[in-house]
Amino acid sequence: MRILITGFEAFNGSRINPSAKIVEQFHEEQFLNHIIHKVILPVDNNTAGQVVTKKMEELKPEIVLLLGEASLRPVISLEKVAINWMDYRIADNSGNQIADQKIDEKAPDAYFSSLPIHKIYHQILESKIPVEISLSAGAFLCNQVFFTSLHYLKKKNSSTICGFIHVPPLPEQVVEKNITSPSMSLELSLEAIVIALRTCIHTLESTSSNH
Amino acid sequence: MRILITGFEAFNGSRINPSAKIVEQFHEEQFLNHIIHKVILPVDNNTAGQVVTKKMEELKPEIVLLLGEASLRPVISLEKVAINWMDYRIADNSGNQIADQKIDEKAPDAYFSSLPIHKIYHQILESKIPVEISLSAGAFLCNQVFFTSLHYLKKKNSSTICGFIHVPPLPEQVVEKNITSPSMSLELSLEAIVIALRTCIHTLESTSSNH
Amino acid sequence: MRILITGFEAFNGSRINPSAKIVEQFHEEQFLNHIIHKVILPVDNNTAGQVVTKKMEELKPEIVLLLGEASLRPVISLEKVAINWMDYRIADNSGNQIADQKIDEKAPDAYFSSLPIHKIYHQILESKIPVEISLSAGAFLCNQVFFTSLHYLKKKNSSTICGFIHVPPLPEQVVEKNITSPSMSLELSLEAIVIALRTCIHTLESTSSNH
Amino acid sequence: MRILITGFEAFNGSRINPSAKIVEQFHEEQFLNHIIHKVILPVDNNTAGQVVTKKMEELKPEIVLLLGEASLRPVISLEKVAINWMDYRIADNSGNQIADQKIDEKAPDAYFSSLPIHKIYHQILESKIPVEISLSAGAFLCNQVFFTSLHYLKKKNSSTICGFIHVPPLPEQVVEKNITSPSMSLELSLEAIVIALRTCIHTLESTSSNH
Repeated sequence: MRILITGFEAFNGSRINPSAKIVEQFHEEQFLNHIIHKVILPVDNNTAGQVVTKKMEELKPEIVLLLGEASLRPVISLEKVAINWMDYRIADNSGNQIADQKIDEKAPDAYFSSLPIHKIYHQILESKIPVEISLSAGAFLCNQVFFTSLHYLKKKNSSTICGFIHVPPLPEQVVEKNITSPSMSLELSLEAIVIALRTCIHTLESTSSNH
Repeated sequence: MRILITGFEAFNGSRINPSAKIVEQFHEEQFLNHIIHKVILPVDNNTAGQVVTKKMEELKPEIVLLLGEASLRPVISLEKVAINWMDYRIADNSGNQIADQKIDEKAPDAYFSSLPIHKIYHQILESKIPVEISLSAGAFLCNQVFFTSLHYLKKKNSSTICGFIHVPPLPEQVVEKNITSPSMSLELSLEAIVIALRTCIHTLESTSSNH
Repeated sequence: MRILITGFEAFNGSRINPSAKIVEQFHEEQFLNHIIHKVILPVDNNTAGQVVTKKMEELKPEIVLLLGEASLRPVISLEKVAINWMDYRIADNSGNQIADQKIDEKAPDAYFSSLPIHKIYHQILESKIPVEISLSAGAFLCNQVFFTSLHYLKKKNSSTICGFIHVPPLPEQVVEKNITSPSMSLELSLEAIVIALRTCIHTLESTSSNH
Repeated sequence: MRILITGFEAFNGSRINPSAKIVEQFHEEQFLNHIIHKVILPVDNNTAGQVVTKKMEELKPEIVLLLGEASLRPVISLEKVAINWMDYRIADNSGNQIADQKIDEKAPDAYFSSLPIHKIYHQILESKIPVEISLSAGAFLCNQVFFTSLHYLKKKNSSTICGFIHVPPLPEQVVEKNITSPSMSLELSLEAIVIALRTCIHTLESTSSNH
């Protein structure tokens, strides 16, 4: 199988983004005998969605796993829903701050993740890693890339599964910002993402072997 | 030097206590050429204070580092003050639930930690570990053991330095309780405690070498 | 115009529900020369949606304003999106606890509120009442009634506007539950709801006068 | 009896301080046949303590009730303990930002409130107002005025009772700061303070009638 995994570059004054750090850890472009393609997305309203859909066009991956940072959440967040809406609380890295606007005027209001998030949830819990199913990926670039990807796949009538997972900040980011807020170690977040990916692969393999 | 480091047994339905796990990690009874004595304290109104003061009596340590778990705090908490008050929100492991009562009717209202907590704070920050100076150790057994120890040392006119550090729950505890709340890995909490201990030793060494 | 306003009965061990209290305050069945119909909905998976759609069938209201309680939120929450999903953390008042299930297998994944929530947001802010646009109405009965109503109106191709607003608990509920958590006075929540309703009416009136 | 009640002027960019608003509500200088003196204190490291001790010197009040704003707390906070320490996270209104310093080098580490805070707690709860006993008044000017007052009374060997109560921000302040955080209406906070004062008076009256 071909797997596309994406993270975001740093934003909002931070020098690091845990989602990019996690993506970097997949240094061999191979995972359980499958090929992993990695992309670090720009935090930019105009280009982020294009970069990911162009990659999907090019690679035709069976699995698309999008990662991002959720700055105040204490646990791994498996996102349930992507919404057709932008309402940025802060500007993106190019200075754009979009308010109350649809991502695509002709698209539906929202799409559910097509990853097996309930299975992933239970697999991560079994490994003793704090995790939740989240009902909002926000209205910034994480949600935008999530929605754009699902809408692209829908239009293509694709069977590719695609979803978004938010990870907490790294401990060093909490120190950098000098706030008293939750964090998660890179090791633990990475372990959760590996479990998520493995669960996606197993689900697709067992589905195809049923035919 | 002789160092006494204490943690607590598990309580409130949890099967583990990160403070006990940290204490266990000091498996060799030696640390930077100093001797470490370890005690796991009971979560019991009647005995916890006695166990720690008896150990101090017996060992005459130069440093007393008391550890405990703070169930909802996201960062390492260096406690500034121990208060002469008990007001338990939950029962201890023996079923005692004390309300609005002094620990010692004849003792002062409070004592400040005698550890160099500002130095410790900056040392831990430099290692990129999330940390705060906390102004309340609660009114349960953590505070009680902290106050009892400082009062004992004061009465003895001792030069021993003594303080309390709260650590966040471990990730597996958050999973065990099935809540969305902060945690910190054992590795990171342990690293913070090692830094705290090293800073205490260096402070005492540089103080004594000045004489 | 005909206006349907709904609240929920008490649930989860509380004896009161602020949404029902607010609905009760509209004691005259008249509001700015418009007719208000009030319904208190059961916290019941099987009947809540039916009660509200039957009322819409019967009354043909131009505005449907659904209210509910959000137990830990400190401000008025204008809900942006209703999702086609149930995942109850607690049982409803009839003991049903639905996990990971669609509300309607044949319906879309989600609908946006059709109330002018950005206008409402700014009107409430101008009155100095704490308010936010919320991106999740949860996966319990509030969301279910919200989704069911929007789906019903969509199928009818109706021009009725419909949305959901969550209000914080009342101060007396925080006392009842003996927790340290946010609340809002009935007066302030009611004022926000009156502003929301007035904004809906004005929006429909100015829209129709444009034709 | 003579009662001194104090609040603080606005600080940290806010145009209002709920503690000053509450003090202003006691417009008649009379309360249950007792005389109320009101002072609004400056948020200034150098003068705040002096203003309050000078007033105590001048008035010889039997009751001193100090009020302040706690910016993120959702309930009325009856402060248990004042500590001999300053560690400002923000500068005061004169630009002073004190770090890690005792208020008075020769004073004890801390004093407990001498108000009957457990009685007050239960009286406020009975009136269905959210309230807690707080174990930290911070390390800014609220705590400083609290500590300075208790230390002054101790040195005078005075029988005056004195304590500090923190109130949540007003709803309009949350709007002003554009954050999603808790607030309490002026009416409710004021009611809690009236109950606190009445409980103090009754306690002193019943104590003196016992002699």
